[in-house]
Amino acid sequence: MKVVALAGGVGGAKFADGLAHCLSPEELTIVVNTGDDFEHFGLHISPDLDTVCYTLAGIANPQSGWGRMDESWVTYTELKQMGAPDWFQLGDRDLATHLERTRRMEEGETLSQITAHFCQVWGVKHPILPMSDDPVRTWVLTEDGELPFQEYFVRYRFQPAVRDFHFRGVERAHPAPGLLAALSQADVILFCPSNPFVSIDPILAVDGVRQACLQKRVIAISPIVGGRAIKGPAAKMFMELGIPPSPLAVAQHYAGLITGLVLDDLDADYAMEIQQLGIGTLVTNTLMNIPAERYNLAHTILQAIEGGKL
Amino acid sequence: MKVVALAGGVGGAKFADGLAHCLSPEELTIVVNTGDDFEHFGLHISPDLDTVCYTLAGIANPQSGWGRMDESWVTYTELKQMGAPDWFQLGDRDLATHLERTRRMEEGETLSQITAHFCQVWGVKHPILPMSDDPVRTWVLTEDGELPFQEYFVRYRFQPAVRDFHFRGVERAHPAPGLLAALSQADVILFCPSNPFVSIDPILAVDGVRQACLQKRVIAISPIVGGRAIKGPAAKMFMELGIPPSPLAVAQHYAGLITGLVLDDLDADYAMEIQQLGIGTLVTNTLMNIPAERYNLAHTILQAIEGGKL
Repeated sequence: MKVVALAGGVGGAKFADGLAHCLSPEELTIVVNTGDDFEHFGLHISPDLDTVCYTLAGIANPQSGWGRMDESWVTYTELKQMGAPDWFQLGDRDLATHLERTRRMEEGETLSQITAHFCQVWGVKHPILPMSDDPVRTWVLTEDGELPFQEYFVRYRFQPAVRDFHFRGVERAHPAPGLLAALSQADVILFCPSNPFVSIDPILAVDGVRQACLQKRVIAISPIVGGRAIKGPAAKMFMELGIPPSPLAVAQHYAGLITGLVLDDLDADYAMEIQQLGIGTLVTNTLMNIPAERYNLAHTILQAIEGGKL
Repeated sequence: MKVVALAGGVGGAKFADGLAHCLSPEELTIVVNTGDDFEHFGLHISPDLDTVCYTLAGIANPQSGWGRMDESWVTYTELKQMGAPDWFQLGDRDLATHLERTRRMEEGETLSQITAHFCQVWGVKHPILPMSDDPVRTWVLTEDGELPFQEYFVRYRFQPAVRDFHFRGVERAHPAPGLLAALSQADVILFCPSNPFVSIDPILAVDGVRQACLQKRVIAISPIVGGRAIKGPAAKMFMELGIPPSPLAVAQHYAGLITGLVLDDLDADYAMEIQQLGIGTLVTNTLMNIPAERYNLAHTILQAIEGGKL
């Protein structure tokens, strides 16, 4: 079975890691949101790509889910003492990634090439593709004005209420090499339990991606469990847009695109309503507090798909 | 007495530090070569400015003379493991300087403004000026072709024989704000014991600096002692250009510009020949192995100047 998984940050990375334990590198391609990318201290930073790569490499910080394991903070501490902006944490090991990515970009390498190189260095066998090698920048229209994503997310800790999202540059962004081919060869496309608005939607907005999805079996894993997001602002965003956060809201958000939705045991009551939208459901434990749960969730979903139950 | 000192890297920094112990911030201005500046991993690095600032701040590595005291190498080690270029060492504390400088430059601050800010953060009271806020890049014409200074100096450990030097951009570079005023108000201008070809000459090449020097008492401290450079390629460069390295060679290099030369006890025999060029001499211990020697050397030279002996 050939699978393409669309992923954002921590939740997406954990589920992608689960899939990587069940599928060979020939069977799985992971496509990562780059709308979060930004420039900071002159460096090109790709937070979601880093989180996915670090997680699959087994070098992610197991507590936070992002950044590096065994991280130190010498440079960051020094920067703070110099009065530099400290709203985005820069670990010493993580900095090496940003520095080397920036250097290679300045030498003309694409984000895809650099990501492939990093994966080779870190021993990641499964192909990880940025959604595009062209710059796409997510801006969040809030009640306090429009903010670049990282400022909204990290600097202002997603406190301003959202009104809308804008993926700047996406109209000119080409899908990364191999992305459309992977989608067209896929037996199933999975939307990881990532933020629909700012993780999955930017990927879908890249030329050809949404259309490719429309030809396929597409299954989303709800990032909303028990009315909350496991991590991040997904539930808060639904509320601010006037929609009660639930797997049903996720199903409606992706309506016309997904053929199935995986929801948590806690939300079993929503299954019927979701099915009435013509969307198949799988109710299971979707929490991934420990690595074994990632593998179990991926295994359960892949088995349901293979067994024709989703 | 108002003094302006022109300085390059380690030797210049040590002597400038000696001067700073003898003169108040109102009496001393330090002008630093920026021809060594370069871009690496997307960062703007100013090696000589950093060395001078760190030294005056008392935070320089006392063993190497450059870089930070109590340095760590987490990012650099990680970069090496990623196969990144490792010919230029990037310490974790040092990296904070490069990052914050780059960030401020991208926000439109000048190198002068940034240097002033760093000095304030590090408690350096004496004004330290880059020679220019405009980019000047020293290229070294070698028998193996032309090399940017840092590649010649660090990457190739100054092994290729030199033929000539070129300060790219210097014809368009304006002297840093306050530089010409400091020179015109100076009672004496000192050329620190820095490399004449690649530390002092780039400063002299900035518009108005050489002319200002011609109006003043100018005293150089020979960086050549006993036929060798204390540090770096100065002696090797003299030889490759067909000139036996000695304080006399230094005097001839600066002929028409300097009114006095300070040479080491080891080289006392050269004093007469130098005086025959119309250049006054002071023979003293010029080695600065320990901080006290910096202060002694500065004190001895300043006393000789005040006493009319140089």
